[in-house]
Amino acid sequence: MLAKPKDRRSSENEGFSFPPLSRRGFLMAAGAGALMGIIGCTQKAAEVPVTTSAPVKTTAPPKYEVPPGKWDDYIAFWSGGHSGEVRLIGIPSMRVLLRIPVFNFDCTKGWGVTEDSKALLGDFRTGDTHHPHLSYTDGTYDGRYAYVQDKINARVARIRLDYMEPDAIIEVPNVQGIHGLFPQRFPKTGYVFCNSEFQTPMPNDGRDFDKRDKYYGLHTAIDGEKMEVKWQVLTDGNQDLCATDYKGRFSMATSYNSEKGFVLEEMMEKDRDYVIVFNTKNIEKAIANGEYMEIGDSPVPVVDGRRNSPLYGEAVLYIPVPKSPHGINVTPDGKYAIANGKLSPTCTVIDLDKVEEAFAGKIKPEETIVAQPELGLGPLHTQFDGRGNAYTTLFIDSQICKWNIEKAIRQYRGENVDPIVEKLDVHYQPGHCQASMGETKEADGKWLVSLNKFSKDRFAPVGPLHPDNDQLISISGDKMVLVKDEPVWPEPHNCVIVRRDIIERVVKKIPNMSDFPVKTVITVKGSGNSRYRVAKRIYGRASDDERVTSMDKARVERVGEREVHVYMASRAPVFSPTSFKVKEGDKVRLIVTNLDKTEDLTHGVGIPRHNVNFIVNPQETRVVEFTAGLPGVYWYYCTWFCHALHLEMRGRMIVEPR
Amino acid sequence: MLAKPKDRRSSENEGFSFPPLSRRGFLMAAGAGALMGIIGCTQKAAEVPVTTSAPVKTTAPPKYEVPPGKWDDYIAFWSGGHSGEVRLIGIPSMRVLLRIPVFNFDCTKGWGVTEDSKALLGDFRTGDTHHPHLSYTDGTYDGRYAYVQDKINARVARIRLDYMEPDAIIEVPNVQGIHGLFPQRFPKTGYVFCNSEFQTPMPNDGRDFDKRDKYYGLHTAIDGEKMEVKWQVLTDGNQDLCATDYKGRFSMATSYNSEKGFVLEEMMEKDRDYVIVFNTKNIEKAIANGEYMEIGDSPVPVVDGRRNSPLYGEAVLYIPVPKSPHGINVTPDGKYAIANGKLSPTCTVIDLDKVEEAFAGKIKPEETIVAQPELGLGPLHTQFDGRGNAYTTLFIDSQICKWNIEKAIRQYRGENVDPIVEKLDVHYQPGHCQASMGETKEADGKWLVSLNKFSKDRFAPVGPLHPDNDQLISISGDKMVLVKDEPVWPEPHNCVIVRRDIIERVVKKIPNMSDFPVKTVITVKGSGNSRYRVAKRIYGRASDDERVTSMDKARVERVGEREVHVYMASRAPVFSPTSFKVKEGDKVRLIVTNLDKTEDLTHGVGIPRHNVNFIVNPQETRVVEFTAGLPGVYWYYCTWFCHALHLEMRGRMIVEPR
Repeated sequence: MLAKPKDRRSSENEGFSFPPLSRRGFLMAAGAGALMGIIGCTQKAAEVPVTTSAPVKTTAPPKYEVPPGKWDDYIAFWSGGHSGEVRLIGIPSMRVLLRIPVFNFDCTKGWGVTEDSKALLGDFRTGDTHHPHLSYTDGTYDGRYAYVQDKINARVARIRLDYMEPDAIIEVPNVQGIHGLFPQRFPKTGYVFCNSEFQTPMPNDGRDFDKRDKYYGLHTAIDGEKMEVKWQVLTDGNQDLCATDYKGRFSMATSYNSEKGFVLEEMMEKDRDYVIVFNTKNIEKAIANGEYMEIGDSPVPVVDGRRNSPLYGEAVLYIPVPKSPHGINVTPDGKYAIANGKLSPTCTVIDLDKVEEAFAGKIKPEETIVAQPELGLGPLHTQFDGRGNAYTTLFIDSQICKWNIEKAIRQYRGENVDPIVEKLDVHYQPGHCQASMGETKEADGKWLVSLNKFSKDRFAPVGPLHPDNDQLISISGDKMVLVKDEPVWPEPHNCVIVRRDIIERVVKKIPNMSDFPVKTVITVKGSGNSRYRVAKRIYGRASDDERVTSMDKARVERVGEREVHVYMASRAPVFSPTSFKVKEGDKVRLIVTNLDKTEDLTHGVGIPRHNVNFIVNPQETRVVEFTAGLPGVYWYYCTWFCHALHLEMRGRMIVEPR
Repeated sequence: MLAKPKDRRSSENEGFSFPPLSRRGFLMAAGAGALMGIIGCTQKAAEVPVTTSAPVKTTAPPKYEVPPGKWDDYIAFWSGGHSGEVRLIGIPSMRVLLRIPVFNFDCTKGWGVTEDSKALLGDFRTGDTHHPHLSYTDGTYDGRYAYVQDKINARVARIRLDYMEPDAIIEVPNVQGIHGLFPQRFPKTGYVFCNSEFQTPMPNDGRDFDKRDKYYGLHTAIDGEKMEVKWQVLTDGNQDLCATDYKGRFSMATSYNSEKGFVLEEMMEKDRDYVIVFNTKNIEKAIANGEYMEIGDSPVPVVDGRRNSPLYGEAVLYIPVPKSPHGINVTPDGKYAIANGKLSPTCTVIDLDKVEEAFAGKIKPEETIVAQPELGLGPLHTQFDGRGNAYTTLFIDSQICKWNIEKAIRQYRGENVDPIVEKLDVHYQPGHCQASMGETKEADGKWLVSLNKFSKDRFAPVGPLHPDNDQLISISGDKMVLVKDEPVWPEPHNCVIVRRDIIERVVKKIPNMSDFPVKTVITVKGSGNSRYRVAKRIYGRASDDERVTSMDKARVERVGEREVHVYMASRAPVFSPTSFKVKEGDKVRLIVTNLDKTEDLTHGVGIPRHNVNFIVNPQETRVVEFTAGLPGVYWYYCTWFCHALHLEMRGRMIVEPR
């Protein structure tokens, strides 16, 4: 339970009211039924594209072709939604350069087949990735790691950018529906913050399921280097998207369902929700002071960040914003956080220096708001070009709205200026948008991707299941120009677009045999929905006993009545050994080292009827365990085309009757 | 055992010798060591692209852009290699329009999660697809089905083109390594033929693993409409690629390892291997006459097609071709089958009318050969433009060789003509190539795709694992023009490029609620490696008891002490019911019907910590079963963005303590 509660200033924000807006009443006064009707109509209308409010000259699109053999300027990290994967996509070509299996089973790589990947995955074989973000140093990408969350099983994975493979997966305790995720931007990552979208009883052990006031959300801080959960903050309301500032002071969550509703109508009762700001230093201080509790049997310290908490105003601040805000994005100059209205046609611009003043008790939370431009229906996410413009997706209007931040601030102060620069139709219902380097202080304003949820009539028909449509838009000129429709396997939610040089300088083409995953360390604490599981791969040098170093050292060792270890080597176009014997029912541990040193010379190992299929990159060692099946000859073969004699690269596993 | 053996004419082809070729000796005389050296060098050299032998003007590439919102002219069916999937790719944009999970686990769709897909998949969770082909009527695609094989577990799947989903998977008995697959082209499909690449003991039950002369391959004929194995033919040698003629007379297999070698060196001893031709009518006749055996406890009739069989010359013919042929392709006019040399620099052109004469005993098998042009190093596969030209991939040379078929025939007759028209560098090591409609009588000579095994330096670096590189080449003009490099998730082996109208006229955008998969029928006969398992989905009308037809009919039924059935409905943005209760350890059967009728309005259902994640297209019903976990609240939510209030589309599964 909460230790040493202090008496602190409580919020005054309940009395805050918003200035009138022309279209706001339309949405905000609407009940659930009316809203659903509106949205239905708009979706239907969007099937016939409407004229953009600022017509765009499309006759001379900017240069976006990447000719054969040329490289893309950017490598973007794309979430894969409930494919559970992350994708690397070249910009501007929009070509998929790599799938990175993360939370999913993938038999191309053998992700979920090899022992190291099974250890990372734990009990779960599904994932739902929304928000991939890279590690930062001083406000821009440092090329160390990518992080991505799994909404369905409340996990966070880290991907090593040198190997482009996950090296750690954390099951976050006490939460459900990890949605928003954002790394600390300054001085470096540091923390990776993530939000639980679903409120659950605390602890979630079958008690209190019917008690609304027992349901809470948690904001979680993970140490992104050690991959450990450091602390959590208990809040009112569902937490949605996450962001951090550029000075290492705050993490933030948009929060809806302050009603604590169980069903849709209840979740939308109020016209106001919140941006919750978490003060990193003050939370650390509270924990140092013992002002925390623990939930269930999880060992993670939990700070009380509810609106009625004694820590309110010190650890957390609730800034009132219109109805059910969704995305939250920080401008590249670090000055402002922008909350996107979703069920309000506005974005709310929050001055982050004023947030510091509010934490200091000098101003009220609502006084941190410096603009609230009305942009259109369904603003979800905002991006930046580094030239003072913001680009907001309008889900219901199916548009990107380009607007000027300073003009919006002047308008809010009462000046008669229109912050809207231009609107561009997209196809259809955009969720996130992302600009090149748009989540860094180096936002360069060249490309914007609109990640649209519906493609409808944009692609040749391929059945009841439609791809999503990610559209590439040039933003380098005065006008936005749509240059490309890219169908995508649903459903990418978000991406970050990273300059190629950042990746190019760190990525390994051929791992060194002394630097590959040698073991996976698993830590489990707590139980049930408070279970806290961390799986981390350790990279290093395997001993010569643990893998073969030459073709002639391949060997088969029986280590017991029912267990055989097979140390195998591959060098195109042969495996060594070319055959081995096991007995029916044996546990077989197969350790394969690829001795090839040529870039791109990956081998695969498939064994019929044993669910064994995985790859081994040059100089890597991978391990699988399986049970030998019915007696017979099983030809293991190379599944990755490696050589003119690739088809002949195989050998026989001979299963003898026991 | 073989019934009623007859005395028949035996082959005279052992004495056949090939005409001399300038470079052939280079490869054919080489032992394994020399070959591997050659290939190693060539791979290295290919890193620096060499000048094409016929320099290509690349300044004015043909129009291949597909502007935003426009549709591709072709929908290509791409294999996914050991990803286990099939992909639909638009040509010429090369955009992936759809992934079709087939033999793999895919948590986007819930393939391997839903009960119907689990029933289709059976025991296996890996796949290795190489050769997708569509059903034919009179030599061209009829839009009914696609078929694809799984090399790793010897399976064949059928995909319904209206739903773009697999509706049947067969485990083929007695074989390993199903590689080549080709449907009957005339009068219609009819049979789907497939080859076992690995020779195994017959039966493969642990006996005879060390007896070389007990190892055989099998050519399998599947009824592509009923999805049943009709018969198999036992052959000497590994069977590789498969083809059929355009008159419904023959299926064919390239065959290597006539040596019956266990290891590489043994497999390459002889300079000659075979094209095996299977005479469909005569095989049917033999079976009708009882001239077949059965292997193990599989019920499938097996005809003896070995070279020393009494049925030689009637059921099968072995046409001698140079060392380890790989691809076999039939010209769109139906006249010729072309076997690609792999370890010989030649292609062998076989006249199919002469094959009929050979079966009639009028000529010797080798006399069916009408040309054998020397094309370059490592010819693997050949395609056609319908204007008399062939396009052959040269794996080792990393080139496409365009050559004229009639000129090659004239050259073989002794005329001094050069059949080679042009060579184009590709990047690097091409396996298959495919031309638009190139496997039909309607080959239109517009596009050629070269499916290259290595991409090396062609794309921005993304780690040790490189994508493959599928390159798009215009073949509509006099010169081949390379227009596009497309990185692909390894490893597609082959594709077929289908005119859009063929797909467009059959594909369903919204299934009718009375026409979706209602049950899966599974038949298993035989056991072990002779197991013959067929799983077929039945489409039809589910009764109103089996699914809900309106939101208010959603219900939860306890059907026993430990089993609960949940009948759920979805309509954006709500599920019905919004909560349900089960007990810890209950078997839960969740039947979800998507009541939305709007095209593209798919919903997903994810349940935290229960490995439940699947989608339901408009008007579909899908079923999953799982065991309720530890007590607590689990928010099930829509994983497929469906509405402005999608994020709020969820409900609570409340697991009570038992």
